[in-house]
Amino acid sequence: MTSISIRTRDRTEWQDITASVADAAAQSGVADGVCHVFVPHTTAAVTINENADPSVVRDIDATLARLAPLSGDYTHREGNSAAHIKSVLVGSSAAVAVEGGELRLGTWQGIYFCEFDGPRNRQVWVQVVGSSKR
Amino acid sequence: MTSISIRTRDRTEWQDITASVADAAAQSGVADGVCHVFVPHTTAAVTINENADPSVVRDIDATLARLAPLSGDYTHREGNSAAHIKSVLVGSSAAVAVEGGELRLGTWQGIYFCEFDGPRNRQVWVQVVGSSKR
Amino acid sequence: MTSISIRTRDRTEWQDITASVADAAAQSGVADGVCHVFVPHTTAAVTINENADPSVVRDIDATLARLAPLSGDYTHREGNSAAHIKSVLVGSSAAVAVEGGELRLGTWQGIYFCEFDGPRNRQVWVQVVGSSKR
Repeated sequence: MTSISIRTRDRTEWQDITASVADAAAQSGVADGVCHVFVPHTTAAVTINENADPSVVRDIDATLARLAPLSGDYTHREGNSAAHIKSVLVGSSAAVAVEGGELRLGTWQGIYFCEFDGPRNRQVWVQVVGSSKR
Repeated sequence: MTSISIRTRDRTEWQDITASVADAAAQSGVADGVCHVFVPHTTAAVTINENADPSVVRDIDATLARLAPLSGDYTHREGNSAAHIKSVLVGSSAAVAVEGGELRLGTWQGIYFCEFDGPRNRQVWVQVVGSSKR
Repeated sequence: MTSISIRTRDRTEWQDITASVADAAAQSGVADGVCHVFVPHTTAAVTINENADPSVVRDIDATLARLAPLSGDYTHREGNSAAHIKSVLVGSSAAVAVEGGELRLGTWQGIYFCEFDGPRNRQVWVQVVGSSKR
């Protein structure tokens, strides 16, 4: 397993981690399999979507803020319930196929680390499963 | 990896791809493992839910349209931000266990390709990881 | 594959299944890989989030009830459309890395079975893929 360190700067931030995940996948030695990306945090998430036009993730993030507003009728006293809710809606892991030792993403797809309660130092864990290169 | 070609007819459409995924899983030669289903697009998704009564996915789809309306206060200029948002909420991959070379789904479960920005020609990638048949 | 039996007591209930999943992972004999947790039902889900303060899942559950109200303008006649919708939003599977034969979760993470249409007898399937212990 490879751990990627991330430093976020804002409360909410979408960071494109595609290159780091691709590196980790290449270093795993797996030729044919699946690359799993895990977020070991409960107020952050990982997802796959367009990384060409930054307005796309801006719109996604704004909608999440509408579905789970920062200030709501919450019982959790730490003030970050919205971040926990977004984490569940978006998800704590992503899976990408590996072929010929390389990540297989669609043309417009990038892998995003989604910070919902930053700024913080975060980790992303990458585990690749499959058959090894010969 | 197996690629399944899909042709969607409407802007929003739920297409049951269970049989195609089961075929791909059977052809992989994996006896015991996990079948991963990937959507290499950023305005479509894949999920698992009831495929007995079509009213179920109609209700899910209508709720998604309420959470992410087609016309909203979006900054992305292509007019399909709602589709990107739904793609993140539903997810770009699904995982199903394989035992004895067969997909293990619950009684009422089917695998759906979710088109949110059709009609289009789409692909679904199936990658199966695990131990092979002897 | 290991099947875990669950008995839920309420219509909506978040049950921490981390210990049972960790047992199943340990018994699989896999040293290095990924543990997949599947819910073979269409009105329940599985997710990973904080299991320290119970107010967190209470807030997540309350927000899901707001996004998909129990009584809505639904066409499915069984009265549980909200449960199907929540199942899709939260997801029917979760993946966790395994290292040294043990689940790798973040400090505050627990695995939750999410009942949305209980009380019922439920199953959770655990399938671990990877390289075996020597």
